[in-house]
Amino acid sequence: MASEEAPPGPAPQVLLVDCPDRPGLIHAITGVLLRHRANIVTNDEFVDREVGRFFMRTEFVGVPDAGRVADEVRGALPPPAQVRVGRAGSHRIAVVATTEHHCLGELLLRHAHGELGASIEVVVSNHATLRPLTERFGVPFHHVPHQGVTRAAHEEALLDILERHELDYLVLAKYMRILSAAFVERYRHRIINIHHSFLPAFAGPNPYRQAFERGVKIIGATAHFVTEELDEGPIIAQSVVPVDHSWRPDEMAQAGRDVEKIVLAKALKLVFDERVFLSGNRTIVFD
Amino acid sequence: MASEEAPPGPAPQVLLVDCPDRPGLIHAITGVLLRHRANIVTNDEFVDREVGRFFMRTEFVGVPDAGRVADEVRGALPPPAQVRVGRAGSHRIAVVATTEHHCLGELLLRHAHGELGASIEVVVSNHATLRPLTERFGVPFHHVPHQGVTRAAHEEALLDILERHELDYLVLAKYMRILSAAFVERYRHRIINIHHSFLPAFAGPNPYRQAFERGVKIIGATAHFVTEELDEGPIIAQSVVPVDHSWRPDEMAQAGRDVEKIVLAKALKLVFDERVFLSGNRTIVFD
Amino acid sequence: MASEEAPPGPAPQVLLVDCPDRPGLIHAITGVLLRHRANIVTNDEFVDREVGRFFMRTEFVGVPDAGRVADEVRGALPPPAQVRVGRAGSHRIAVVATTEHHCLGELLLRHAHGELGASIEVVVSNHATLRPLTERFGVPFHHVPHQGVTRAAHEEALLDILERHELDYLVLAKYMRILSAAFVERYRHRIINIHHSFLPAFAGPNPYRQAFERGVKIIGATAHFVTEELDEGPIIAQSVVPVDHSWRPDEMAQAGRDVEKIVLAKALKLVFDERVFLSGNRTIVFD
Amino acid sequence: MASEEAPPGPAPQVLLVDCPDRPGLIHAITGVLLRHRANIVTNDEFVDREVGRFFMRTEFVGVPDAGRVADEVRGALPPPAQVRVGRAGSHRIAVVATTEHHCLGELLLRHAHGELGASIEVVVSNHATLRPLTERFGVPFHHVPHQGVTRAAHEEALLDILERHELDYLVLAKYMRILSAAFVERYRHRIINIHHSFLPAFAGPNPYRQAFERGVKIIGATAHFVTEELDEGPIIAQSVVPVDHSWRPDEMAQAGRDVEKIVLAKALKLVFDERVFLSGNRTIVFD
Repeated sequence: MASEEAPPGPAPQVLLVDCPDRPGLIHAITGVLLRHRANIVTNDEFVDREVGRFFMRTEFVGVPDAGRVADEVRGALPPPAQVRVGRAGSHRIAVVATTEHHCLGELLLRHAHGELGASIEVVVSNHATLRPLTERFGVPFHHVPHQGVTRAAHEEALLDILERHELDYLVLAKYMRILSAAFVERYRHRIINIHHSFLPAFAGPNPYRQAFERGVKIIGATAHFVTEELDEGPIIAQSVVPVDHSWRPDEMAQAGRDVEKIVLAKALKLVFDERVFLSGNRTIVFD
Repeated sequence: MASEEAPPGPAPQVLLVDCPDRPGLIHAITGVLLRHRANIVTNDEFVDREVGRFFMRTEFVGVPDAGRVADEVRGALPPPAQVRVGRAGSHRIAVVATTEHHCLGELLLRHAHGELGASIEVVVSNHATLRPLTERFGVPFHHVPHQGVTRAAHEEALLDILERHELDYLVLAKYMRILSAAFVERYRHRIINIHHSFLPAFAGPNPYRQAFERGVKIIGATAHFVTEELDEGPIIAQSVVPVDHSWRPDEMAQAGRDVEKIVLAKALKLVFDERVFLSGNRTIVFD
Repeated sequence: MASEEAPPGPAPQVLLVDCPDRPGLIHAITGVLLRHRANIVTNDEFVDREVGRFFMRTEFVGVPDAGRVADEVRGALPPPAQVRVGRAGSHRIAVVATTEHHCLGELLLRHAHGELGASIEVVVSNHATLRPLTERFGVPFHHVPHQGVTRAAHEEALLDILERHELDYLVLAKYMRILSAAFVERYRHRIINIHHSFLPAFAGPNPYRQAFERGVKIIGATAHFVTEELDEGPIIAQSVVPVDHSWRPDEMAQAGRDVEKIVLAKALKLVFDERVFLSGNRTIVFD
Repeated sequence: MASEEAPPGPAPQVLLVDCPDRPGLIHAITGVLLRHRANIVTNDEFVDREVGRFFMRTEFVGVPDAGRVADEVRGALPPPAQVRVGRAGSHRIAVVATTEHHCLGELLLRHAHGELGASIEVVVSNHATLRPLTERFGVPFHHVPHQGVTRAAHEEALLDILERHELDYLVLAKYMRILSAAFVERYRHRIINIHHSFLPAFAGPNPYRQAFERGVKIIGATAHFVTEELDEGPIIAQSVVPVDHSWRPDEMAQAGRDVEKIVLAKALKLVFDERVFLSGNRTIVFD
């Protein structure tokens, strides 16, 4: 029978550093933390040699003024440096969906039980299908139809709702429309998408039918940041499940939904725990 | 973007045969089906040579009186033969839980969207914790406290509620109490449980702490039929996820919950689709 | 400590049927087997509804003249029917490689210890690199250089060697050259290839570098029959392994090699055990 | 087609630190490295809060006298501190086997192609079965029969051979005899074993038969350090593969062998790359 041991106390603060690599960085950063008598809980670094950048994530406790730590660390680093202090689990998000319930349902369940690591402020959809599910969990739902309006007007209507909230991230939970470059830019590096993945990949409509006709033995899912190139943004998490010739396309789709929702939830936890850096078109994930 | 292709029409009927092995069985059974002009959709057989038994599962359509098919097949087989005709997705179940929400939530979500393959008639728990979650989905919830009563009296109270429904299966969705042999016998081969699994196995309380202290690299879950020997019944489905030294016990427990709920849902789908036979302490799963 | 229990006696014969679907096929086929007093060990059928074809694989023992069984079964089926009787593990193969040792080494090891399920008659390569490895295992090695000759002449030289042996299958164990349509046609449905697979897929050279730059979290391998379209033939087996941002391209390549060799060996075992049917561009794998 | 990109130059040196946790350790250690103008390639730390110990692994290049770095780091740390400098891939090992070839064959293949990360100095077995395989690869083989001698005398004979070599590790590649506590102590924390693993675990002989009879759906393998308690030492790596009711015990055993050899090779690579620390009965693996 399961033991659910709680994490020890409130979420620690997280120092996130991304700067050009050079000797002495860890020594310099830990020097600042030491002066502030920070108690380091965990520390991870990575140097991306392809681009010559240094990444460091430090969980610490015991510092009242974390903002000053960030300022002093920034002062000690070569520019251009990105330094910030976050706190795991403090994020505010919107979920954007169409009609499929599996990812939204997973997020609502975890949210209702304090396991999502973020607060779902609002759910927005271009269909009304998911209103009952969302409202079961007491979360506001907005239906923003796309029929009969231009894409620009539709996105404007979406933004009108989203911008009422101070959102850290948008989560596309099987949102079936392509977002304009302008929209993506508005939430640059703050939109996360989930999509199915196959070996080999399939373009065009009806991918599970194509996967069926090709007789694939594995289907999977990829959670990624959204960039202008659809489905081409930095990958946060991936997983797969085995299938075989006897699976109908609808059974493959069910297996695909199961893996999608778990991969999305896993990717979001990594992001909300401040474990994910971007480095060009890759992620550095300190898990 | 996902294509959710629907299965073609109503669920087919399923002929399930379990009898002593001997030559000519498939020929005899398919002869009966042919005379009734049954259209066979899929057919699976397996001979368990350890015990000399033959198992066959046939999905078919186009026969108005499936009961007569079963009778004629039974007449053609060596005794002791078990022959029945089921229909995928027609089952009625109760979910029995304690306080953990992940498995119950998963089942309620799938149920609400027609993906569970069974009807949840009632949820029963020895705590009140899961009432709000259950009632969000419009499913009846009964709190049957175990404090201050004998185990026999508690089980009597549970049975009192369960027996108001014509239940095909009880699903133990992290029910944290041991059922008596008499209770198990009442729902013989019709109680399904999920529990965490480790390499190696751990006895005693606080398994995730033990797993942590032992530094396991994999944790998993097993869905199984309940027999008198706790956690020793026939296994229906298993799955695992990788972990490492940096996972705290509470993080391992979260990963354990994620894998438990997916494995339980998968096992139930197999059972509700009439794909699972029992053969001694093993299952034959035609998936 | 491991128990290696041997399979019970000599490999059974395998009846393989592929014909248009219609009612009564299983009944008819099992009728023939019953008349010949065949003892059926296992039986699998599958109907590919997309193309309306029926597939059946029956392992049986106890029939001296299996050829007559095949003839009678063929006579009982609607044309065009393919019926044959094979025997698991009786195949003769050539391995065609370039310079990478991991797949060839795996096959030679299994072959040396009776686990491959086929006899490696010859190894052919366009480089001499793998001669010492091959000859360690007492298998003939032919170096057929491709430099300074046309592709047609090179393939002619390959065929000259291959056709000295009565080969059932060619296994491309990281053969780095593209085969002409004419060559593929010569061994139609009898050439098996292994290649790395990614989510997403990468075209062009240096795929592990591309995978690294894209930050993929999973890499895999696909074993497939070779058709004229390179890497697009029917898939036999696939598998994946997790990777992360800290893996260098050469470490990803090592993980890729590990998964490639196991997937190739698994796919070959399925083929050599007569468990794989072709249906259009898919495989039906009775595993 | 695969790209095998080589790692950039000679293996870096690795500083390994294990000491009581306290504030300022990273700052102090990186200070020493900075003074020696070490170029840090990667750096990992972990604090095991259960036991209050700090672990750090630093790959660095550019320091002629790494011994002085170790001495100065040791001087800067609270006792009892373990500090050493290793170099990935410089280890000398013996492989100890009985009759099963799969793990030994895997190690010999990788060794022959420079992928093992260590030098196999000698293979020792209590049977002669594996002599031909070993000698194919030009590695010395010693047959040390155990029949007719006491365990103490047999171990003495083993040690007599092993101690002719300056060995860093003994690898038990399916060695089927239990080692005495005295023998284990002689190579304390330097013996690595591989064994099959199941959910649930099985004691006693013939585990694959037991796994078959229990109908397990997953089988796996665990590589671990050997301690006095057989199969209970710190786990280095684990992996699993799915099986089902149709697998005979011998087929399960084959799948078990496949996963064993890959897990063993993976665990050894981690150890030989100096990525594995011991902390009580757990490993800290910086992979």
